[in-house]
Amino acid sequence: MADRPDALIFDVFGTCVDWRTGITAALVAELGTQLAARGVDPATLADAWRARYQPQLSTVRDGLRPWVNLDVLHREALADVLAGWQADDAARDRLTLAWHRLPAWPDTVAGLTALHPDFVLASCSNAHIALSVHQARHAGLPWDAILGAEPARAYKPRPEVYLTAVRALGLTPERVMMVAAHNSDLAAAAAGGLRTAFVARPDEYGPGPGADLVAGPGVDVAATDLVDLARRLAAG
Amino acid sequence: MADRPDALIFDVFGTCVDWRTGITAALVAELGTQLAARGVDPATLADAWRARYQPQLSTVRDGLRPWVNLDVLHREALADVLAGWQADDAARDRLTLAWHRLPAWPDTVAGLTALHPDFVLASCSNAHIALSVHQARHAGLPWDAILGAEPARAYKPRPEVYLTAVRALGLTPERVMMVAAHNSDLAAAAAGGLRTAFVARPDEYGPGPGADLVAGPGVDVAATDLVDLARRLAAG
Repeated sequence: MADRPDALIFDVFGTCVDWRTGITAALVAELGTQLAARGVDPATLADAWRARYQPQLSTVRDGLRPWVNLDVLHREALADVLAGWQADDAARDRLTLAWHRLPAWPDTVAGLTALHPDFVLASCSNAHIALSVHQARHAGLPWDAILGAEPARAYKPRPEVYLTAVRALGLTPERVMMVAAHNSDLAAAAAGGLRTAFVARPDEYGPGPGADLVAGPGVDVAATDLVDLARRLAAG
Repeated sequence: MADRPDALIFDVFGTCVDWRTGITAALVAELGTQLAARGVDPATLADAWRARYQPQLSTVRDGLRPWVNLDVLHREALADVLAGWQADDAARDRLTLAWHRLPAWPDTVAGLTALHPDFVLASCSNAHIALSVHQARHAGLPWDAILGAEPARAYKPRPEVYLTAVRALGLTPERVMMVAAHNSDLAAAAAGGLRTAFVARPDEYGPGPGADLVAGPGVDVAATDLVDLARRLAAG
């Protein structure tokens, strides 16, 4: 694009990292015997855990509880999901921390590395700073800054999350592009005046429905992955 | 050390980057003709600009004005320092932004790169996030997170700056080590329960006095530079 943004801010769960593969592997490592004995597909258990996420965030967004970080929410949701399972506190702690160590999608590091010389890159995730730092170190994500929920003490898609990130970067919204695999995230960023880029992650929820397959209306750039995004922004 | 910290947080101006060399060069680039005509040593002008810094921070620390970022303070101080000089707004803007593009000390990138596999590394500077991001990109500082003054909306050595950084990293103070070339910074971090490492930067203020040459009492580790710090923390 002729008038390129100065900074790109990124959703991370689903957009940059493959939470379902990572969490499924952690559940197998921790609960493999019980999963087999119960005949439960570990990916289904991962999906059930993740399905608690948006309702939990809603309680914070709607002011029903003060802002707490994702370790707290992940641990609470796990208690629901594992009701009746045998898992001591140490096992539940290890599972909660599995969200800190998720694999990148195959194109993520190459794409971010290609973007890095030309754009300030920051995470704008609902993850808190400590989780984001561990995640970036584990997966090799070259963030210039960790922004997102914690600095705003709010959860996306609340507008203050995007606008706090924009202000922290010393920019105006039109100089910043939000990158996500989720159209709801992009629509909220666009409402705040940011530019938007959609990255398709059709396998985020495994086979079957769940993922947004195409960019929603008004999205500025649609890319097949982060390497494709780097190519499109360089060529424009 | 047998019981190593989990994270190192760093002072940046003076400790990681050589502000005097960078600002002197910027003044020469912008005002070279006037400096020559007036017979003013540009390094002396850089020192005069920096000398406004601690008194400015004191006005914020003491609650005499609300927290503002270093771009605001640098620009105000420049107005004092350049009273009677010819420099239009654009020139003053460029000079203010020179604080975003300072050279690293020769050992800084190698030292931080050696430390990075074993420790979470974050800036804990009085610089705001945008300045810190630009500075890190310019000098190649591999921060995992930008912390410091802006998240706390306070200036070091106020204790909340160190403790906000510790909390953001999800750690307790004793798991975090503050690294600085300034004993006053380390004393304040230690008062908050953090561990401390002194790095000697005898040339921070050029020839003559100004720099702390040796570690103050109670400092946990004293290093000659950041490569030496990496060696000491690895060997301990």
